[in-house]
Amino acid sequence: MIAWLTKVRSKPSRMAVGLMSGTSADGVDACLCEISGYGPDTKARVVHLASVDYPEHVRNLLTHRIGKLDVEEVARLNFLIAEVFAKAALKCIEEASFHVSDIDFIASHGQTLAHFPEADHELLPVRATLQVSDISVIAQITGLVTVGDFRPADMAQGGQGAPLVPFADSVLFRDERLGRIVQNIGGIANLTYLPPGCRPEEVIAFDTGPGNMVVDAVVDRLTKGRQSMDTDGRLAFSGTVNRPLLRHLMSHEYFNKRPPKSTGREAFGVQYARKVVDEYRQFTGASGEPWDPGVHLRDIVATVSELTVQSMVAAYRTWILPRGPIDEVILGGGGAHNGYFVARLKQELLELNPSVKLLTHGDFGISDKAKEALAFAILGNQFIGGMANNIPSATGAARPVVMGKLALPW
Amino acid sequence: MIAWLTKVRSKPSRMAVGLMSGTSADGVDACLCEISGYGPDTKARVVHLASVDYPEHVRNLLTHRIGKLDVEEVARLNFLIAEVFAKAALKCIEEASFHVSDIDFIASHGQTLAHFPEADHELLPVRATLQVSDISVIAQITGLVTVGDFRPADMAQGGQGAPLVPFADSVLFRDERLGRIVQNIGGIANLTYLPPGCRPEEVIAFDTGPGNMVVDAVVDRLTKGRQSMDTDGRLAFSGTVNRPLLRHLMSHEYFNKRPPKSTGREAFGVQYARKVVDEYRQFTGASGEPWDPGVHLRDIVATVSELTVQSMVAAYRTWILPRGPIDEVILGGGGAHNGYFVARLKQELLELNPSVKLLTHGDFGISDKAKEALAFAILGNQFIGGMANNIPSATGAARPVVMGKLALPW
Repeated sequence: MIAWLTKVRSKPSRMAVGLMSGTSADGVDACLCEISGYGPDTKARVVHLASVDYPEHVRNLLTHRIGKLDVEEVARLNFLIAEVFAKAALKCIEEASFHVSDIDFIASHGQTLAHFPEADHELLPVRATLQVSDISVIAQITGLVTVGDFRPADMAQGGQGAPLVPFADSVLFRDERLGRIVQNIGGIANLTYLPPGCRPEEVIAFDTGPGNMVVDAVVDRLTKGRQSMDTDGRLAFSGTVNRPLLRHLMSHEYFNKRPPKSTGREAFGVQYARKVVDEYRQFTGASGEPWDPGVHLRDIVATVSELTVQSMVAAYRTWILPRGPIDEVILGGGGAHNGYFVARLKQELLELNPSVKLLTHGDFGISDKAKEALAFAILGNQFIGGMANNIPSATGAARPVVMGKLALPW
Repeated sequence: MIAWLTKVRSKPSRMAVGLMSGTSADGVDACLCEISGYGPDTKARVVHLASVDYPEHVRNLLTHRIGKLDVEEVARLNFLIAEVFAKAALKCIEEASFHVSDIDFIASHGQTLAHFPEADHELLPVRATLQVSDISVIAQITGLVTVGDFRPADMAQGGQGAPLVPFADSVLFRDERLGRIVQNIGGIANLTYLPPGCRPEEVIAFDTGPGNMVVDAVVDRLTKGRQSMDTDGRLAFSGTVNRPLLRHLMSHEYFNKRPPKSTGREAFGVQYARKVVDEYRQFTGASGEPWDPGVHLRDIVATVSELTVQSMVAAYRTWILPRGPIDEVILGGGGAHNGYFVARLKQELLELNPSVKLLTHGDFGISDKAKEALAFAILGNQFIGGMANNIPSATGAARPVVMGKLALPW
């Protein structure tokens, strides 16, 4: 292990595969990348991206039964998902015409099965997070040293174990003169704010609220599963925002909570979407009528799409602008391709700063799909260097820590 | 990390804390020990042993609800149990009048929540094992590098992920000239056989059959719970073995199965004990009589105690003697304190080899309680050295692997 570490650590650049599966639980993204340096001197370049879908029954478990999984399902998923992660890594390496022997390490986020940043369980009053996709299994299948399971170390130091991507954002997007927001719109929307020339402790990062999650859930519910998302924001564009309902939704306690803060499916998942539909019926006085979802679909989608936009803008106004300038907003995530989000966000941003630029990760040579997997490769690179890889101001941890665990392939 | 590894790896000896919690789920045993060398050159010495009990509600979850835990309970137990493990490590270090800065690393088995050596789940057809007690949490709380979660790597190479203790047995008890059986008598009895000067692939390890389990269950049943075990083997000594019944019990298919093999409560638990009592009544023609358990208790206990002894001896005769000499048998586990087992085993052994020695772990300076925690410290020491720590001939793995994961405290 020492010989390996000594060799890999001091190479001019390392070839790594970052592995990520988000809360949407579609499958695994594998990003082959070249990384040089450590800490603020890190440089990273995406070489290739590959994806592997989860088998359908796994995706079903992860989306519809995730809160009800039993201990046997957790144990088996930890191994089965690791096989999918390993397959994605090997596929990515092969597609890029590399050999396993060219690769220095794998860094894996794993698949989140549970995340409880509060000690609010009666019998087990402790904070916890659970990512599966066993790194020993990945290491043994791929033959590569594997770093992963980053969140628990931060949580053990009082942090939320999230968000973790801001560390990579600070490495990839920090600018000496510009204040930048890196705005990711996945199921949940989250931002990293990098003040001009910021030090790590000046980085601000938190979940702004729902991204695509509520929109997707509403579309799925009201089309009875015939549609799963609002492609390009077409439904939202064609609908009318219900302002009273929007105001009500914006009064959700999460939006007023002081950062650092994070949220997820528990707060803005299927249950929440169901409640929004019910509330829409009350707000429009439609609760007594026979209910034709098709008629109201567009307006509900417009309203929850606007909720995503408004919750981001409110966050900029309340928590970012008092701390520094917003010169550029760099969009990422699936929601960066939702025309409604982009158009409305641009309108709102121009009111905050008429010279603001709205960019995408693509403008920096990083595809949206590659971003998170790349981020975990960067966290893994820090682990290999024995250097901290959390942002305490974002997670709330008491101090910088070297997050992650290491498994050997030998 | 390199500086730490380089320093620790090359020290003449390392101070480590092994942490173990067994299936009885009472709490955590922490064993402070001094380890020098790696592989066959390993020497280990127990410095101190400490224990911390689980809170009662945790013990209840682990004994009565373990198969029904949900994903939230699994996630929270992973963190909560890690706090107990960390506490046990720190208590052990303090009681031994050491400082944390004197200690090189922690090695933790964790708490088994699930173990499925067969891919017999309909939806998730994959083999799996799940040990909780997050090593990042242990590392952050104690400030010590922590190695743990050993089983998955062996399983990823086709092994059963068990037994793991034979590796430690081979390190602690291997002798250049003597053939040794390390015979553990817990609920189930298991052995590790170390031929003289053996290489790792020559080690044989398997469960011989019942240890205390059937005796305890019979005593509990026939005394209606007033007694839970046969202290010192007093009941067995005072009874008479029913030879026809014993011959019948020894025809159990498990005893003829070829190693590697393992068994448990499913085969030799309460159900089995009930059947033995019924069979005793048939064999003695007592099934028609009014039944006074007190009259027959001693004879039944003598018979099932003899079953434990005979199944061990049969295993030696059938599976061990054809492979090498038995010069010493080293007893461990609770059953090593049952005078009947010890006396009868000695008689039988002398028939196999008139110069055989019957020893205990205590004769090697290792208390029964310390043994397993020490074993995991030895596995962790191998990980630090980057060397394999499974016994493929015992687990069934395709090859030797470096089991374990590493978490940093920085």
